[in-house]
Amino acid sequence: MKTLHVELGDRSYPIHIGTGLLDNGDLLLPHIIGSEVLVVTNETIAPLYLDRLLPVLAGKKIGTVILPDGERFKTLDTLAIIYQQLLELRHSRKTTLIALGGGVVGDMTGYAAASYQRGVNFIQIPTTLLSQVDSSVGGKTGVNHPLGKNMIGAFHQPVAVLADVATLDTLPAREFSSGLAEVIKYGLIGDSAFYQWLHENIQALIGRDRAALEYAVEQSCANKARVVAADERESGLRATLNFGHSFGHAIETAQGYKGLLHGEAIAVGMVMAADLSSRLGNISPPEVDRLRSLLVRANLPCKVPAGMAAEEFMTHMAVDKKVADGVLRLVLLKSIGDAFVTAEYGGHLLDAVLQDYCG
Amino acid sequence: MKTLHVELGDRSYPIHIGTGLLDNGDLLLPHIIGSEVLVVTNETIAPLYLDRLLPVLAGKKIGTVILPDGERFKTLDTLAIIYQQLLELRHSRKTTLIALGGGVVGDMTGYAAASYQRGVNFIQIPTTLLSQVDSSVGGKTGVNHPLGKNMIGAFHQPVAVLADVATLDTLPAREFSSGLAEVIKYGLIGDSAFYQWLHENIQALIGRDRAALEYAVEQSCANKARVVAADERESGLRATLNFGHSFGHAIETAQGYKGLLHGEAIAVGMVMAADLSSRLGNISPPEVDRLRSLLVRANLPCKVPAGMAAEEFMTHMAVDKKVADGVLRLVLLKSIGDAFVTAEYGGHLLDAVLQDYCG
Repeated sequence: MKTLHVELGDRSYPIHIGTGLLDNGDLLLPHIIGSEVLVVTNETIAPLYLDRLLPVLAGKKIGTVILPDGERFKTLDTLAIIYQQLLELRHSRKTTLIALGGGVVGDMTGYAAASYQRGVNFIQIPTTLLSQVDSSVGGKTGVNHPLGKNMIGAFHQPVAVLADVATLDTLPAREFSSGLAEVIKYGLIGDSAFYQWLHENIQALIGRDRAALEYAVEQSCANKARVVAADERESGLRATLNFGHSFGHAIETAQGYKGLLHGEAIAVGMVMAADLSSRLGNISPPEVDRLRSLLVRANLPCKVPAGMAAEEFMTHMAVDKKVADGVLRLVLLKSIGDAFVTAEYGGHLLDAVLQDYCG
Repeated sequence: MKTLHVELGDRSYPIHIGTGLLDNGDLLLPHIIGSEVLVVTNETIAPLYLDRLLPVLAGKKIGTVILPDGERFKTLDTLAIIYQQLLELRHSRKTTLIALGGGVVGDMTGYAAASYQRGVNFIQIPTTLLSQVDSSVGGKTGVNHPLGKNMIGAFHQPVAVLADVATLDTLPAREFSSGLAEVIKYGLIGDSAFYQWLHENIQALIGRDRAALEYAVEQSCANKARVVAADERESGLRATLNFGHSFGHAIETAQGYKGLLHGEAIAVGMVMAADLSSRLGNISPPEVDRLRSLLVRANLPCKVPAGMAAEEFMTHMAVDKKVADGVLRLVLLKSIGDAFVTAEYGGHLLDAVLQDYCG
């Protein structure tokens, strides 16, 4: 087992990464300050792992909430189910929420914890690759609004994260690949050595080799933790974590979150952002091709879904959070392993990319 | 004009207190960082003051939201109206929300600001005595849930507060007195000299003498700011600000927020808490009578509404935030001007108070 420490002053917390951590009480119990625990999970994960987690919490006043599964349920209405349960059980400010599941469960549980009685503790037990490498690090919590993704939320750090790569055994192949998109992102934006390692080890990862998985999760979390520690509130550096996300969110929004998975949409977005970076002369065209090849080996798409028009991108990107005072900022590459945020990409180059990919 | 500074590190902010501040652009504009502003007010306040505020913001991209008036609208559903407007206007993270109104408008606007895109700036322009002395200081924001008051929310500090005592001219007498309850509370819990001043000046306040009002608002804010600065997250000292509130909230909840006003319920709660403090031997019975007399002169009630049973208090107080791990903590007086939080009040004494007041 490896343990990373996310350094955020009095909000610092450990991320434990290993195999078979799910029912390890020694890792979990020290982070539960009171006698009240609410485990939030979903219909898919509950039958797989809830019965392994609950015995660890024996003696606590335990509540469980089993949410419907899917990004389309990441709403204020679903959040209300968690509040209702907390209030019916009369959980106090000393309650601890445990998110057992993927990013949607984590984001909603985290936001419920941020807002219940103005803030209670929560622990993340991410059971998807995406949530192990992305949403469990950094304290971003929240829900979607019909007019935009993650538009309502809070920064709220967990008190601990347990990333058990054994839980990835039950993850469907598409969702596993979706997580790999974010793993690849960390290499692209800040760690060229890790990016090279990924090219050499993508087959082992696809085969769910546990040692490779532990290394990839650890490197991803370490890269994200480094960025978050330097910029907790996303004033600058942290925005580079959104590489590929402006394009990707536009795809997800256009599809009503019913088409590509998050990581799949981000994979397409990363190719588009890399291509724009190439047109600006920052990276070479072969480097864009090499990225495409890695994504293909990871079973990820590189093309915009058929039927989506360039105008749709602009509409949905305009409400994106990278818009400040009407100017759309994008995360682009200076080189492989080095991303930056800029509004200086030339509107005509962006237009050209959108036209080419929406052809 | 007086200016207080609430010292909270990088979240410090000024409170300007005076007469005719509402349309003073020199005070307001420096706190608006971008070009986007959303003014949130209600149906009662909009016709009185919105047209005076809007010209100050000329040149900004202004949105307005006019909410229905009343505590019963302090809900997640009403909050959704604010989110909807922000998203339809495509306001970015650099937007500034302005709360123009009383505590309900301030709490909801503040929480919308805390949660929109995980946090944007907001400015408070409180137009009731209660909100000038209470909800505009301290960063508590949130909404009610059918199962409990202020159960969903965040700590989110405004970037500035403009308390214009001239706006109190239009405040109905009952609401004005309701605000006086909180003013009196500050004397009781932390400032015996101010408590004495209140006994001597209650008539001037009731007559809305502006000099007296400015002094009372300033002293109240200074007292609250001192407590909040020492304990922003309510781990200890700050809880003393809830003096009278456990009892008061129980009354409001039992009445479904349709009976006594907040300050009226708190007035009754303060008498009950003072009485319990007296039964513990901390203050003398004549001091409880002297408090009752001050409240009566302020046109505030001292008795529990007819028909409310002692059992109802216990039911509603059990979900109160002062409950930690099943133990009900209360804010009581050590002496006049000195409050503390305790679970050591003897259940039989609490029962006796409840029986006497629910007689």
